[in-house]
Amino acid sequence: MTSYAAAKAAVDGYIAGFAAGDVDAIVALYADDATVEDPVGIEIKQGIAAIRAFYTMSMATGAKLAPLGPIRVAGEYVAFPFAVKLEWQGKAQRIEVIDLFRLNAAGKITEMRAFWGPENMLSD
Amino acid sequence: MTSYAAAKAAVDGYIAGFAAGDVDAIVALYADDATVEDPVGIEIKQGIAAIRAFYTMSMATGAKLAPLGPIRVAGEYVAFPFAVKLEWQGKAQRIEVIDLFRLNAAGKITEMRAFWGPENMLSD
Repeated sequence: MTSYAAAKAAVDGYIAGFAAGDVDAIVALYADDATVEDPVGIEIKQGIAAIRAFYTMSMATGAKLAPLGPIRVAGEYVAFPFAVKLEWQGKAQRIEVIDLFRLNAAGKITEMRAFWGPENMLSD
Repeated sequence: MTSYAAAKAAVDGYIAGFAAGDVDAIVALYADDATVEDPVGIEIKQGIAAIRAFYTMSMATGAKLAPLGPIRVAGEYVAFPFAVKLEWQGKAQRIEVIDLFRLNAAGKITEMRAFWGPENMLSD
């Protein structure tokens, strides 16, 4: 079971990492053998090298995250709604996402799953 | 992989079922061997009888659901943020929740997980 404080620190660090465009800060939130599934349904990435490659690509879009409501902490998990704001083909876009982090006893993310689909991609 | 239409029908039916106080309507959304974990971290209920007992108890509080944002459909899942509004010890209360449904090919819920904790329970 994760504490509210540890879950909040992970989510705040994630949003701050995107705000700063700091891939290292994001990668540091993850456990070494963590998995990332973004969006849910595509191939799962495992391990820090794959996770670093994924976020390096994400950051290249200039993506920033804007919370859309409170975090929900339950058991080993934290779920939270937010918008990804980015430029795509010269236009401001927004993707409305719910992320789910599973955290270990050290507060590191062991599993990240991002729930979003085509209907959540909007023009700003 | 679930369709957006099937996912939306399940979520709309869930919210409508609570609005009507109709336990049968909620139970009909579930597959026979489905599991319910609400909140995540407590014992998982399995099967229609256990699910019916759970919702009978929930409905007795007069709980209604108010969406707090769009549904997110990904793979076999739909995630959505909402508030549960209920009376507790004579006072209007609100719980801010994210639910995650896993759907089968027939559009029935096979797994429901509700993410919320003490910090999400608020006085209205």
